[in-house]
Amino acid sequence: MSAMNIVVIAPAFGFTNEWRETIKSIVPNVEVYGEDYVNRHSIDIALVYNPPSGKLLQYPNLKAVITLSAGVDGLLSDSLLPNVPIVRLVSIEISDTMREYVVYHTLKLHRDFKKYEQQQENKIWQWLPPSATTRERKVAVLGMGKIGYQCALALHNLGFDVSGWCRTAKDFKNIQCFSGLDSLNKLLANTQILVCILPLTSKTRDILSKEVFKRLPKGASIINISRGGCLNEDDLLNALNDGHLANAVLDVFKLEPLPSSNPLWVHPSVTVTPHIAGDVSPLSAAKEIFNVVNSLRQNQPLANTINFELGY
Amino acid sequence: MSAMNIVVIAPAFGFTNEWRETIKSIVPNVEVYGEDYVNRHSIDIALVYNPPSGKLLQYPNLKAVITLSAGVDGLLSDSLLPNVPIVRLVSIEISDTMREYVVYHTLKLHRDFKKYEQQQENKIWQWLPPSATTRERKVAVLGMGKIGYQCALALHNLGFDVSGWCRTAKDFKNIQCFSGLDSLNKLLANTQILVCILPLTSKTRDILSKEVFKRLPKGASIINISRGGCLNEDDLLNALNDGHLANAVLDVFKLEPLPSSNPLWVHPSVTVTPHIAGDVSPLSAAKEIFNVVNSLRQNQPLANTINFELGY
Repeated sequence: MSAMNIVVIAPAFGFTNEWRETIKSIVPNVEVYGEDYVNRHSIDIALVYNPPSGKLLQYPNLKAVITLSAGVDGLLSDSLLPNVPIVRLVSIEISDTMREYVVYHTLKLHRDFKKYEQQQENKIWQWLPPSATTRERKVAVLGMGKIGYQCALALHNLGFDVSGWCRTAKDFKNIQCFSGLDSLNKLLANTQILVCILPLTSKTRDILSKEVFKRLPKGASIINISRGGCLNEDDLLNALNDGHLANAVLDVFKLEPLPSSNPLWVHPSVTVTPHIAGDVSPLSAAKEIFNVVNSLRQNQPLANTINFELGY
Repeated sequence: MSAMNIVVIAPAFGFTNEWRETIKSIVPNVEVYGEDYVNRHSIDIALVYNPPSGKLLQYPNLKAVITLSAGVDGLLSDSLLPNVPIVRLVSIEISDTMREYVVYHTLKLHRDFKKYEQQQENKIWQWLPPSATTRERKVAVLGMGKIGYQCALALHNLGFDVSGWCRTAKDFKNIQCFSGLDSLNKLLANTQILVCILPLTSKTRDILSKEVFKRLPKGASIINISRGGCLNEDDLLNALNDGHLANAVLDVFKLEPLPSSNPLWVHPSVTVTPHIAGDVSPLSAAKEIFNVVNSLRQNQPLANTINFELGY
């Protein structure tokens, strides 16, 4: 079994010694180095999270890049990338945690749990009549990749009336999935909770804008766990302030960390979380890295590689 | 098809004209009367929610009682009940909504969403490292009737490590279910989130007490959606105040509405909701009433009747 060397280029990720040791304990015969490792010719794999532009070209014998981020728009915007496969780390935990985020916030909107919290602060004992039963509540998931589908399926299993929308026509058991712009407009007109988990590409930049919001019925809410670049924040604030949209739950922003001057922080109808919807543990990542190393050693094609043309 | 007359005795329920009209539109050839209806001999079915003691004996020709409440301890404590079947209205909506409540609050505890809300108030952009991954998170559901099982299954489907516990040994696909006191103690030692959905009987009164809490590991949390009578509130406050338990989510209380002097309202580790976990719409209830009326007309045995000996 050939020895392999991994370099970690993940400045803002918090790659700890626990990460290093977990990878070495799971993946046989590998070494894990930091950016300061000088013998760059010996590096086979780069494990990255938002690496600086051009950095990867410093490793002439790279066989693959593994990105710890499920979103790859930042990486692909770099014109100085090596000509090797880039693998997106899609662990079960990223899928688990993003699904949890979507289910939690959909239930919070559906059952008015925020108002119940406010009632507790004022010691108010009062049932709030629901605006729809679970079976009546219409949820749409934009982006039906692996993670989007898991979100849609979980909501369907909880009894919600769920539809999906994606770039290409797809068939899913239990979930109707639309594609194309005409069907998007029809879907929006019938959506009370809109979940966005689209990749950020030239076609989805600012897709959540006034054109989309005005097609949603009055009182609809949005949940964005895709990319800040998919959302026009000014259009959202206008739609919330004029009462057309009821709530927005945002995990991602054009500028992260969200500047303290951004009005989204304090808007009463906006939930802000610090890009935490998806999460991954060292063990889960190590298992995915094991699969990549294994495929490289056996000269097998790699799974979950990025399609440069599509941008995800 | 024989005509049937229903009397509604549900003083604290909020039985509106919408309820009456929905029942009449779904169930053929029935009339729905209020308590003020004088021709009591003609009443076939009583639809009740916490009826006053002895009240049902005023209807000499009752064939069945339907209770709108999933919990029946109050009704069964009445020594003046007619000798007819009592049907518990188990609509899909009660099950849907209780499941939603359990899933929402389990996710809130699991992902520390309350802390993220507090961070937003202070404009803090900070990832909170999870204390367990979803697959590691151990949840126990006490009470594995129809609703408890649906709660356990939903959590299992989201990836949690779920076990159940109930009076009699039961086999469920995907969920290990324990019974008996010895196995309860073993289960508790390994539980981070304890969900109680047991019926209130002489055997479950105050079951959530210091004996149970001390067997849970430090940092565990509880969710009670069964009955206030199942929980010793003083023991809970002690266990929260000495730091052994981390959080409690309570929908039911010994005294409801919860008096404003009760310290649970303002405890920082307690979530109080006003007995709203389970909810039912007129349409959903009407369909269940349809089934009861249908069975009575065909002299078929009724489903979901209460076992007086077991107390649920």
